[in-house]
Amino acid sequence: MNKSINIFKNFELQCLIAEFSNISLKLDSSIKINNFKIAYKTFGTLDANKSNAILICHALTGDQYVSGINPITKKDGWWSRMVGPNKPIDTNKYFIICPNVLGGCSGTTGPKEINMETNLIFERKFPSITIKDMVKAQNYLIEALSIKKLFAVVGGSMGAMQALQWSIDFPEKINNIIHIAGALKHSAQNIAFHEVGRQAIMNDINWNMGSYIKKNTIPEKGLAVARMIAHITYLSDDAMHRKFGRKLQSRDIISFGFDADFQIESYLRYQGRSFVDRFDANSYLYLTRAMDYFEVGKKFSNSIEFPKMKNQHINYLIVSFTSDWLFPTLQNKEIVKILNYFNRNVSFTEIETDKGHDSFLLDEPELDEIINGFLNSNFNKIN
Amino acid sequence: MNKSINIFKNFELQCLIAEFSNISLKLDSSIKINNFKIAYKTFGTLDANKSNAILICHALTGDQYVSGINPITKKDGWWSRMVGPNKPIDTNKYFIICPNVLGGCSGTTGPKEINMETNLIFERKFPSITIKDMVKAQNYLIEALSIKKLFAVVGGSMGAMQALQWSIDFPEKINNIIHIAGALKHSAQNIAFHEVGRQAIMNDINWNMGSYIKKNTIPEKGLAVARMIAHITYLSDDAMHRKFGRKLQSRDIISFGFDADFQIESYLRYQGRSFVDRFDANSYLYLTRAMDYFEVGKKFSNSIEFPKMKNQHINYLIVSFTSDWLFPTLQNKEIVKILNYFNRNVSFTEIETDKGHDSFLLDEPELDEIINGFLNSNFNKIN
Repeated sequence: MNKSINIFKNFELQCLIAEFSNISLKLDSSIKINNFKIAYKTFGTLDANKSNAILICHALTGDQYVSGINPITKKDGWWSRMVGPNKPIDTNKYFIICPNVLGGCSGTTGPKEINMETNLIFERKFPSITIKDMVKAQNYLIEALSIKKLFAVVGGSMGAMQALQWSIDFPEKINNIIHIAGALKHSAQNIAFHEVGRQAIMNDINWNMGSYIKKNTIPEKGLAVARMIAHITYLSDDAMHRKFGRKLQSRDIISFGFDADFQIESYLRYQGRSFVDRFDANSYLYLTRAMDYFEVGKKFSNSIEFPKMKNQHINYLIVSFTSDWLFPTLQNKEIVKILNYFNRNVSFTEIETDKGHDSFLLDEPELDEIINGFLNSNFNKIN
Repeated sequence: MNKSINIFKNFELQCLIAEFSNISLKLDSSIKINNFKIAYKTFGTLDANKSNAILICHALTGDQYVSGINPITKKDGWWSRMVGPNKPIDTNKYFIICPNVLGGCSGTTGPKEINMETNLIFERKFPSITIKDMVKAQNYLIEALSIKKLFAVVGGSMGAMQALQWSIDFPEKINNIIHIAGALKHSAQNIAFHEVGRQAIMNDINWNMGSYIKKNTIPEKGLAVARMIAHITYLSDDAMHRKFGRKLQSRDIISFGFDADFQIESYLRYQGRSFVDRFDANSYLYLTRAMDYFEVGKKFSNSIEFPKMKNQHINYLIVSFTSDWLFPTLQNKEIVKILNYFNRNVSFTEIETDKGHDSFLLDEPELDEIINGFLNSNFNKIN
């Protein structure tokens, strides 16, 4: 069998696909995926000495469409306000690579893709993955692009987990890390919310033990409930109060029934419904599980392991939000603490906002300035 | 039609039933229930001048089995540590009345009971109810027991809402209010969590538009998910971390699958499963909706309505818990603020605990002392 890497454009997905044939991706679970592919987008131009590449890692329900128009939703990419020409992450200056994660559902190998070895859709036969596995797959992509050193790895939430993992597994390949609203490990409460979402999906009769694609059905009700639960955790109580309070939806008085009387109810129902159109239920199971398994507290601790980590040269920027109760400041600070303890280069900012965990995706001018400043000042140092 | 009140013992339920025949309970929605019944338990002895009666209002998933053994679960009643001989609410001294709420599922008129007018189970034909309706029904019971004045009305969470409503609707009938972990209104976030739980139930194919009893099935998966979501909100992040952290369940390493790897997962699954055995899914819909509709902020505000309220003689005790994020201290304090503004008798205590909203049901010695002291000192004043 000939190992080969083949990069081509997928016109339907409007992105690039890197196909790794007969290359073995050995997972944390010891299972191997022998043929895999990564769907990704790039923005900007790689400079001559390949010094301006930034890898952006997406969050749980994100994808490679970080900027520009997402061809599936026909809406702006998930971080269009952050990434683009003259934006805080300036594509006139930097070369952006944004891959869909392993286990995702926008073209990268995952439960809804064809298993190249069996020619069947993976579905529940897809192996369990971890954040480390996602990073390992991304490293194959970076190697395929002949990039020896990434100028930066940037991510929020599950993306922050990947960024942190990059600094553990491939510290020599990165110069800067921007870690937004993450943690050293997924907490009991975080696991609890994910578990309820998974139960909602797996309870849906249309989930059918994970085999729903060939039956041409989707567990849409279960997936919508999972999304609704998660969505509550992405917002703060204050933001919900400010945005919705107890305002009624399209009526003057309560209906004395179970329709969506309150705006918050119809908002959540809409979030649930629209999510189903763009996300695969099995992917949701695998990716939430990968987050639950994330635990680098042993690496990032006052132990013999940390001093051995070759991350002395990495500049870390750790950002948290005051109203984020999913990945609260305290959990982000644990990373800062250990980096400081070992005298690593770390900047930390807690941004005052009532927008909750989702703040990193929303209009937060302070975040824009901090990211832009951190990238540019570090870029000027090496160029 | 002859109006009649009939009180008898139900041996299966091991409680008393007060049947109100041809007595019209006019609901907030303007719908009338013309025959209704209230299942309740009493503890202790009503004194000669009927001055020692305490009404205990239960929370969302509570029932009349506040003390002693619950005949359905065969376990201790939900507040056995608080209520009983020589307990903080001492049944040697006080006469306790604990009714199952209207819309409940332990014998009081609710969706799983027979509609006396049609001889069919109510199911989804049960009318929408409010906290005010629950209190109105309880007042019929208090009248049937010939009690002119309750020494106290006590409740936590949904029980606190009822206690507050009592002081609005029947202030002349009560001397003291103990309001634990409640609010003037259900917040957007609270409504959001309830809405997701309801969607999980109504999405369950076995819910069957509310008609499941006659089909001899229950929407157990949906109800379990609803309970799991709610249960997370009853605990604090810290308490979950302390109790479970990332500890694994019956295994040394993660399973790389969707079984309950973590203790928090199997704990939640157990909570979901066991809830299904004791609670009716339709009741859950109606009672969560009643809580969502709760909003007495207009009454308890700096308006012309409050001064007209005849609550000058009532002693209020408002209790909150530091780690309760469902009904946080701030929301409890809003009640204290307005009572103070109008120079009413109010005591307020915030108890330092990491146990979250459920603290009022758990071992909190400070809560015991405060409740015991408040009741006894006020009882000594009038006796």
